[in-house]
Amino acid sequence: MPELRHLVSIDDLSLPEIRALFEHARQFAEDPRAWSHLCPGLISASLFYEPSTRTRLSFESAMLRLGGGVLTAADMKSTSASKGESLADTVRVVGGAYADVIVLRHASEGAARLAAQYSPIPVVNAGDGAHEHPTQTLCDLYNLWLERGRIDGIHVVLAGDLRYSRTIHSFVYALARFGANIVCTPQPGFELPGYVMQRLREEFGVEPVRADASRLGELAESCDAMYLTPQKPHQLSLFTEGSKGLAIERVDALYMTRPQTERFTDSDKPITKYQQLGLRQMNAASLKDAVVMHPLPRRDEIQPELDADPRSIYFKQAARGVPIRMAILAFLLGRIDLKVEPKPADGRFQSMAVGPNPCQNPTCISRTETRHVRPLFRLASRFPIRAYCGFCSHELAAPFIGCTTTGHFHERDSTAARKIRPDHIVLLRSEAEALEAGFVPAAGAAATP
Amino acid sequence: MPELRHLVSIDDLSLPEIRALFEHARQFAEDPRAWSHLCPGLISASLFYEPSTRTRLSFESAMLRLGGGVLTAADMKSTSASKGESLADTVRVVGGAYADVIVLRHASEGAARLAAQYSPIPVVNAGDGAHEHPTQTLCDLYNLWLERGRIDGIHVVLAGDLRYSRTIHSFVYALARFGANIVCTPQPGFELPGYVMQRLREEFGVEPVRADASRLGELAESCDAMYLTPQKPHQLSLFTEGSKGLAIERVDALYMTRPQTERFTDSDKPITKYQQLGLRQMNAASLKDAVVMHPLPRRDEIQPELDADPRSIYFKQAARGVPIRMAILAFLLGRIDLKVEPKPADGRFQSMAVGPNPCQNPTCISRTETRHVRPLFRLASRFPIRAYCGFCSHELAAPFIGCTTTGHFHERDSTAARKIRPDHIVLLRSEAEALEAGFVPAAGAAATP
Amino acid sequence: MPELRHLVSIDDLSLPEIRALFEHARQFAEDPRAWSHLCPGLISASLFYEPSTRTRLSFESAMLRLGGGVLTAADMKSTSASKGESLADTVRVVGGAYADVIVLRHASEGAARLAAQYSPIPVVNAGDGAHEHPTQTLCDLYNLWLERGRIDGIHVVLAGDLRYSRTIHSFVYALARFGANIVCTPQPGFELPGYVMQRLREEFGVEPVRADASRLGELAESCDAMYLTPQKPHQLSLFTEGSKGLAIERVDALYMTRPQTERFTDSDKPITKYQQLGLRQMNAASLKDAVVMHPLPRRDEIQPELDADPRSIYFKQAARGVPIRMAILAFLLGRIDLKVEPKPADGRFQSMAVGPNPCQNPTCISRTETRHVRPLFRLASRFPIRAYCGFCSHELAAPFIGCTTTGHFHERDSTAARKIRPDHIVLLRSEAEALEAGFVPAAGAAATP
Repeated sequence: MPELRHLVSIDDLSLPEIRALFEHARQFAEDPRAWSHLCPGLISASLFYEPSTRTRLSFESAMLRLGGGVLTAADMKSTSASKGESLADTVRVVGGAYADVIVLRHASEGAARLAAQYSPIPVVNAGDGAHEHPTQTLCDLYNLWLERGRIDGIHVVLAGDLRYSRTIHSFVYALARFGANIVCTPQPGFELPGYVMQRLREEFGVEPVRADASRLGELAESCDAMYLTPQKPHQLSLFTEGSKGLAIERVDALYMTRPQTERFTDSDKPITKYQQLGLRQMNAASLKDAVVMHPLPRRDEIQPELDADPRSIYFKQAARGVPIRMAILAFLLGRIDLKVEPKPADGRFQSMAVGPNPCQNPTCISRTETRHVRPLFRLASRFPIRAYCGFCSHELAAPFIGCTTTGHFHERDSTAARKIRPDHIVLLRSEAEALEAGFVPAAGAAATP
Repeated sequence: MPELRHLVSIDDLSLPEIRALFEHARQFAEDPRAWSHLCPGLISASLFYEPSTRTRLSFESAMLRLGGGVLTAADMKSTSASKGESLADTVRVVGGAYADVIVLRHASEGAARLAAQYSPIPVVNAGDGAHEHPTQTLCDLYNLWLERGRIDGIHVVLAGDLRYSRTIHSFVYALARFGANIVCTPQPGFELPGYVMQRLREEFGVEPVRADASRLGELAESCDAMYLTPQKPHQLSLFTEGSKGLAIERVDALYMTRPQTERFTDSDKPITKYQQLGLRQMNAASLKDAVVMHPLPRRDEIQPELDADPRSIYFKQAARGVPIRMAILAFLLGRIDLKVEPKPADGRFQSMAVGPNPCQNPTCISRTETRHVRPLFRLASRFPIRAYCGFCSHELAAPFIGCTTTGHFHERDSTAARKIRPDHIVLLRSEAEALEAGFVPAAGAAATP
Repeated sequence: MPELRHLVSIDDLSLPEIRALFEHARQFAEDPRAWSHLCPGLISASLFYEPSTRTRLSFESAMLRLGGGVLTAADMKSTSASKGESLADTVRVVGGAYADVIVLRHASEGAARLAAQYSPIPVVNAGDGAHEHPTQTLCDLYNLWLERGRIDGIHVVLAGDLRYSRTIHSFVYALARFGANIVCTPQPGFELPGYVMQRLREEFGVEPVRADASRLGELAESCDAMYLTPQKPHQLSLFTEGSKGLAIERVDALYMTRPQTERFTDSDKPITKYQQLGLRQMNAASLKDAVVMHPLPRRDEIQPELDADPRSIYFKQAARGVPIRMAILAFLLGRIDLKVEPKPADGRFQSMAVGPNPCQNPTCISRTETRHVRPLFRLASRFPIRAYCGFCSHELAAPFIGCTTTGHFHERDSTAARKIRPDHIVLLRSEAEALEAGFVPAAGAAATP
């Protein structure tokens, strides 16, 4: 009986595991119909709380190609959920005997994390709100790996709406983790958000550099191109030419995204002319060998004239979602052995036994589900204490910290707070909340008079 | 070619057949993935006229585990039915070549009975309105049988809303049939309805006895506990202590149900505090070894703190729905032989060739379908004639009885009415109806002047 | 690797191919569960942009019987399509790796033709608006072939709504192509439309003859029966008796249709009494051996009393949809070899590289999809140029013809227009349109001053 593994976030996989999955996917893709001996008798259950036909069919195709069976609940929201069942109960029932792996799509951020806490069988996150969609990211990386032979050190241009695209954010973190260089040529007004930049800095040491994107031609004409690289600043100076920024000579892949209009807010300036990719843009010198990627569905941001261009791989890219999902399912079901070191358990996840939920994100599963959810956080830094919601990854505002052993609470930046063991930490949003949760001010803590 | 069998009601199965199905289910459960050789090439069709994801997935999982294929119509109501096709026609088409067994869920009571009349392949009732859900009942019995080794003579407490729960009513009849003792500790105001008690008396000879539920503690605190037993009254007196009622010493299983709020009417008093099961309630002396069951989904009537208690088997209970449904499907498809006496055909079902439909239940299939339905009744008693609708099981009010051979009609309680052969009986709701259907008053019958 | 074939229209198949498919279907039907070795590892994807449970289940049953897997998107319209993806992109993604054959149902006429242009895997048209439903037609023909041993020369009566039934129109063309004799006994006011008659004349040389339907009895009582035959007029005179018309002696099949009320317009006179088929109507002398067919679902046009009549084959007819679809899928997937001459590619289809879309049918896919659609037409006659939309088959009104080589445009009936090579033709609806598309008037063309 192999250890129970889930795929909630791409961070659940180590780099060697990801590479091993790529190798298996490539093998599967050679003859996708030759692997039906891998999972006969096994069943995947597609639990989709919001519709996503493409993602669902891709997973179900993968399971069928592996010889397994498929249970489909394409519209969970209007059926089971309407009877008031909690997600935790649903996965315990479905995971009890119905299926051998759960493929979960949900509108609430962190839903897959919660499901994984309760499910007796592997859970694959097929998209949780605006949070993560790890198999899409794996598919994108797999495409780069196939097309370029490697990911570290290659140059990837990201264009379009970099602000609201969940796909782009996950992709950016993954590229940084693999050591790729990223060039951002966003639609003006839709640059990478600050919290993404912050995580790139904190977790991967990536600092933005101004980029000289003149060789990108029209594509970068009206935007401020930015260069994100895992290389050390002193190395960069070799390539950077004064005020013009780091030169973009040769691009390996150009990743285009559609405007995520459904997430636009009133404060976003209306887009009069969205970036478009056509043969003219692709004539730029540096794009000569760049493969063109897109997570699809596209609207008008890639012109049909590009479809026949050999550099356009977006349909291949989507097709490759099947073998990579075959690899993921076969791995989680214990039918292939990756023979590499797994990712060690993430010790930074801490469950809060007492106190109210510190997460204020209204679409976090910890807020939309009222039962079976115990607050969870991930420590980003200890001095001062900075934490993210363990479900939705939003930053938690917690000016006060309680300690479950002493029963005291402290100001976040105090010396006392620093000394609390992570598994004793309770994040508190106010003194009132601290008192209500039964904590008393520490001697020396400045309780408001 | 085995005889065509359906599972419309649990009464379609003999007790030896049910026990044989349990044996097969237990065998299947030992390794659910080892039975895919049983039904390859066979197809089940889920025809769901109202959504029920859990039930559907449970059946489909069972069919996949048996190596069969699955056709899914999760939302028949808004598709085929909207084109005005009768249920009788639909099952004839689907049963013609599309599938080998039909799993039917329908909002109208009696729908599965009607479908079984026309289908050339086995029909399994997966819930027909508020009427029956035999595989749920079989699953519940199977759980008792597994946990306790037998059903006859065990003590089962039923708590919560016993009035509107279809599951509870079917379960009660089945427990009585198997010889189990039932203790009712209902939510006050939501006791077992009179017609359920009547059937328990008439069919199984079960009389309610007052119960001394003091050893049930908090659970029975605010309700009048009732004891239903197949034992003879004189035997009971040995256990009953005067006015306190029959003592509840040791409970084998506690079955909790959620409030069926969707069926509440204006005359029901609002529930301010619904029964809740937590560790405190389970501390009662008599519940020390009781397994806790629930048909799920639950809301708040079972507290999460109980989930980890070894007596809580509600998730196991749901999981066991798969092997029991594997046994049912394999049996109906003729792939396992139960090697026991089948239930003899129920001679009490009579079809009415003439006259209007005597059933007045507006959600009975005989009323909601206008085509291909010939009135059907089941005689509960002959002297005087009392009958139930053969579809929805509601009692039929028929003060007059016609005879198809003589062409006469009679008052229900008359000597002449008693002599009519069951298959010649026509149930009539008024003299006017009798006359309109072409019957003439019998000599001696008191026709209104 | 066999050549990529689609089934968009029944015209995509040659008569020998159709007969070979019938032979395979008959073989499959002998034991439908014995063919699961044909398509293991292969996957069909049901992409249904409008619901049609019966058609979908029939195809999915066929694929499961062949041992293949099934992906179901029963409600594409409210899922993927809502994200604004074009049909052309969807089939490229699904056809990329998800599936091996696409079964497409769409509300827009010509959708399957468009899908076939882009799909890398076979596309089967499972109904495109009011246009075609070739597998239904093949199923109907297969029934005739099975019941009568042949199709050419048999007599088929078509009754009911012949005006709005898509099924009837496709069936009529196919019967003409196979050389069957057709007797129309329509609901008065719902005769075959003029454009159907025109195509029968133009493509199959079929001329309507008045029919003496007195031997059809009640069925033809209130309508003007019409006889459509592929035989030469001088031969007919042998059978025709003056003003009474051609005598109907013996009918092989009677095809009844329901009123397509959903397509009625305000100008249709309300139907007070729709044709009904019961035992009385079937007593007519000529119908003694006629099989009764109906595409189902029926409403009241066939009375339940007929269900038990051995001539009623409508449920068998529906059941036979499975083996014929097994044959179609196995053929398109390259798993059976028909060993006959395929239909030569239809040279009459021409794509228009310039100019606006000449099709004015608002429900044609060329109008409802704005991207990836290049106007397509089929030449019905060259002198004068008459053309049909290559997607929806509606006639195109094009008084002016442009030539892509000369850049000139001409009046449709001019000598110059006649000389343009088909693949250089551009259909233009007005001079203004011609000028706007960059054409100049030909010398001698009468440009409006």
